[in-house]
Amino acid sequence: MQISGEMIIGHRAVKGQGGDVFAIAAVSGEALEPAFGAASAHDIDQACELAESAFDTYRQLPDERRASFLDAIAQGLLDLGDNLTERAHLESGLPKPRLEGERMRTVTQLRLFATLLRDGRWHGAVLDSALPERAPLPRADLRQRRISVGPVAVFGSSNFPLAFSVAGGDTASALAAGSPVVVKAHNAHLGTSELVARVIQQAAKDTGMPEGVFSLVLGTGNDIGQALVSHPAIQAVGFTGSRQGGLALLRAAQARAVPIPVYAEMSSVNPVFLMPSALQARGPAIAKSFVDSLVLGAGQFCTNPGLLIAIEGEALEVFVKTAANELAARAPTTMLTPGIHGAYCQGLKRLRDSADVQPVAEGLAPKGLFEAQPAVFRTDAKAFLANPTLEDENFGPSSLLIVCRDFAEMRKVASRLAGQLTATLQLDQADHAQAAELLPTLERKAGRILFNDFPTGVEVSYAMVHGGPFPATADNRTTSVGAAAIERFLRPVCYQNVPDNLLPPSLTDANPLNLWRLRDGELVKG
Amino acid sequence: MQISGEMIIGHRAVKGQGGDVFAIAAVSGEALEPAFGAASAHDIDQACELAESAFDTYRQLPDERRASFLDAIAQGLLDLGDNLTERAHLESGLPKPRLEGERMRTVTQLRLFATLLRDGRWHGAVLDSALPERAPLPRADLRQRRISVGPVAVFGSSNFPLAFSVAGGDTASALAAGSPVVVKAHNAHLGTSELVARVIQQAAKDTGMPEGVFSLVLGTGNDIGQALVSHPAIQAVGFTGSRQGGLALLRAAQARAVPIPVYAEMSSVNPVFLMPSALQARGPAIAKSFVDSLVLGAGQFCTNPGLLIAIEGEALEVFVKTAANELAARAPTTMLTPGIHGAYCQGLKRLRDSADVQPVAEGLAPKGLFEAQPAVFRTDAKAFLANPTLEDENFGPSSLLIVCRDFAEMRKVASRLAGQLTATLQLDQADHAQAAELLPTLERKAGRILFNDFPTGVEVSYAMVHGGPFPATADNRTTSVGAAAIERFLRPVCYQNVPDNLLPPSLTDANPLNLWRLRDGELVKG
Repeated sequence: MQISGEMIIGHRAVKGQGGDVFAIAAVSGEALEPAFGAASAHDIDQACELAESAFDTYRQLPDERRASFLDAIAQGLLDLGDNLTERAHLESGLPKPRLEGERMRTVTQLRLFATLLRDGRWHGAVLDSALPERAPLPRADLRQRRISVGPVAVFGSSNFPLAFSVAGGDTASALAAGSPVVVKAHNAHLGTSELVARVIQQAAKDTGMPEGVFSLVLGTGNDIGQALVSHPAIQAVGFTGSRQGGLALLRAAQARAVPIPVYAEMSSVNPVFLMPSALQARGPAIAKSFVDSLVLGAGQFCTNPGLLIAIEGEALEVFVKTAANELAARAPTTMLTPGIHGAYCQGLKRLRDSADVQPVAEGLAPKGLFEAQPAVFRTDAKAFLANPTLEDENFGPSSLLIVCRDFAEMRKVASRLAGQLTATLQLDQADHAQAAELLPTLERKAGRILFNDFPTGVEVSYAMVHGGPFPATADNRTTSVGAAAIERFLRPVCYQNVPDNLLPPSLTDANPLNLWRLRDGELVKG
Repeated sequence: MQISGEMIIGHRAVKGQGGDVFAIAAVSGEALEPAFGAASAHDIDQACELAESAFDTYRQLPDERRASFLDAIAQGLLDLGDNLTERAHLESGLPKPRLEGERMRTVTQLRLFATLLRDGRWHGAVLDSALPERAPLPRADLRQRRISVGPVAVFGSSNFPLAFSVAGGDTASALAAGSPVVVKAHNAHLGTSELVARVIQQAAKDTGMPEGVFSLVLGTGNDIGQALVSHPAIQAVGFTGSRQGGLALLRAAQARAVPIPVYAEMSSVNPVFLMPSALQARGPAIAKSFVDSLVLGAGQFCTNPGLLIAIEGEALEVFVKTAANELAARAPTTMLTPGIHGAYCQGLKRLRDSADVQPVAEGLAPKGLFEAQPAVFRTDAKAFLANPTLEDENFGPSSLLIVCRDFAEMRKVASRLAGQLTATLQLDQADHAQAAELLPTLERKAGRILFNDFPTGVEVSYAMVHGGPFPATADNRTTSVGAAAIERFLRPVCYQNVPDNLLPPSLTDANPLNLWRLRDGELVKG
């Protein structure tokens, strides 16, 4: 499959007339061929209007039809073979095995949502029987199901060129919900985006989806994103990226005549609590696992362990020393973009220049232009509590150890943390009592709590929560990974006294979809 | 039970020092004794701090404990006897039988949420088994449940002094979710609010709830509401009232350092489509039911039928004539407050002064100071489509008939409507084909679709949706009436590799709460 530099707008491939944009080779920073054409306001409008015109048809398709569409996308991604990973590697600098893994993750996500559609639980069918004899007033027949909120705008992330980009989690969950999707390609991987968009376009044609169910637009600057989020046809937004970017979209969404929800996954430092007994018993082993998690993917994960919290003492010093030794042998790796690399280096400088912070470990010195040197710093709880900027995310393989005098101070640090995607405890049996004391606080701070594990590596499953209180996300009631992600794009509708022949199949008496339904307060298959 | 003019802040009754406020007799507009003391900033702070301090204890209580608390509130409301309805009648002008009905509705809501807690489905328990042998990577044990988002601020509505006020739907669903509640009393029923707040305070004491699980503050002006919504302890807001009021709270919530959701139920004109065959066959009967719905509670319902949409012709003229005759005999009734009455009269004037609008029916002339005269107006579709202000809600017993030339024009009107709480069709078998064409549009416009019924009278049940697209509400993904209202105040948390002894009971292997749980994608009781 060739990369042409075009956008995908409904059934067409369109060379944007808003000026040339080039993808950048991550290793060299050089422009990659071909030139891409940035979207004009008219292109954005077309993509959104097509999404709107496809909406009613698309959302009312039988579940099996939408499931087949998702399956066809998944198969198309597999069929792209090395074409996909080679271009993605060139654009992102991520190693091919990682990209192969990410492709499988993307395929898994699409198939999970296909399974969810076939299962049908997403309909949320609820039936309350009529009570014509009830006094003083009869009760009407009431039935509730969920439908899509409408077309969704998705912003591809820099750090997952496949799994959180054009055919990533937001797109898969929105398409499953019955929402047409307009993706704004991330400039860090324009060619990868086109390849994937063409797969979706072909899958839509092959499975007979209405035109406009999917479009891909591209361009630099903030105008395109603002125009997309402000378009009346768009009813929700999925975003993974910086806090600044997410908040800008949030403001645009709130300024609309009809405000819409923005699911922005923004920034998180993912605290890891090193509990005393675990540190004592197996500090060195934890240190090695920590370093593995820290440098994975050049630290470019939303769930990178950016904060360690521990109580002072000999065991902690052993941990620090082991981590330092371990990190000293780790090679630097190319970051996703020159911009991300520049921001990371600035973040390191800020930490190095901070009076209250000491460097304690670093990886091998960078050789390539845009390689990140992993680094660990330390500070004490008093300084951390006095300086809120120390909690700012430094996107990349950097982590800050906060040394507490005692457990009371550790609790205080926990209670002062901002919202997080994850919170992790390294602990042994003897730490359980303290863990039980920390848990209520951590539940309020994070969407996912891990014991004796590291937060990088987000499972695609039913129970996963990849979300959390602000500023980790803009909406802590949801997740962007896992089956529950579909709920972001659904709203309930109630039908009162509607006869069977006009009800949707999920709500008719015969229950032709064989759904679990809540009937008069009881879950029944019928 | 005496009314003292105090607020309820935790275990205490506090006379606010922010100046005297008086409740007003609806019929006369005269001040009622005693004087109430408005909250100071310190009072607001105290109520919110107490809510915060109660939160972790309260949310972790066994379901049965919170259910007993809700049951005790319900019983307390019953035990208030005539004291409650007499004061509520004085303050609101609503007839006592209506207030008795509303009390029972309030009790029903509290008991529904108690039932929901005992059922336990609200936990949303999801379990994914560990797959230690999976290649290339093992899967961790993952378990998800939902917890409360935190303390909630509730703004009592003017039109339901019991069911959407101090112990109303927002309070009941928030308390059920595990959220402490701080209520801002509506100035239209301060005495009623105090009586109910004292019941909740007593119930909290009797059932051993932590101090701060409930507080009631009061005061005039916007400052108190702004302070409440801006307080860092508050994590969500429930509001029923005007669009202006709802949007002001929304802006305050979005301006916070940590933005929070506002569930504002604001304005809706609840279109009723009179389909041709039904109009032909039983226009006069529909006209009578329409008038009943229009004047119910002086039209002071969010679901009042403020818009009729029909196709021109003889049958429609028969309908109009019957409605006019019917309305001509209806007595005016006192409105909730002088302010609401004034706004209603202005709305009538605006309609009467509009060149494109003709009056077609009105009720008996008012005698009392603050009585509303019911009225029906008509316009044509062309004028309606050209003048968006004709869709503005006129809160009270006023309705506007939009006459369409044909079904195509009716569809066009439907497609141009703003978001609504409800959309209603009066139809017969021969209208089904047209109804099927309208349904996809109506599903996008409204939270509830009714056939051959009228939207006033909102059932408290599992399938109810009292919500809808903006501006009907600020968040179309939820409902403020019915069992699903609890979901507004919940967020998911995932537990990765957490041992059984540290898991909440909803997620332990033994399933001691006997919950339906989603285990590896299958619903099971285990």
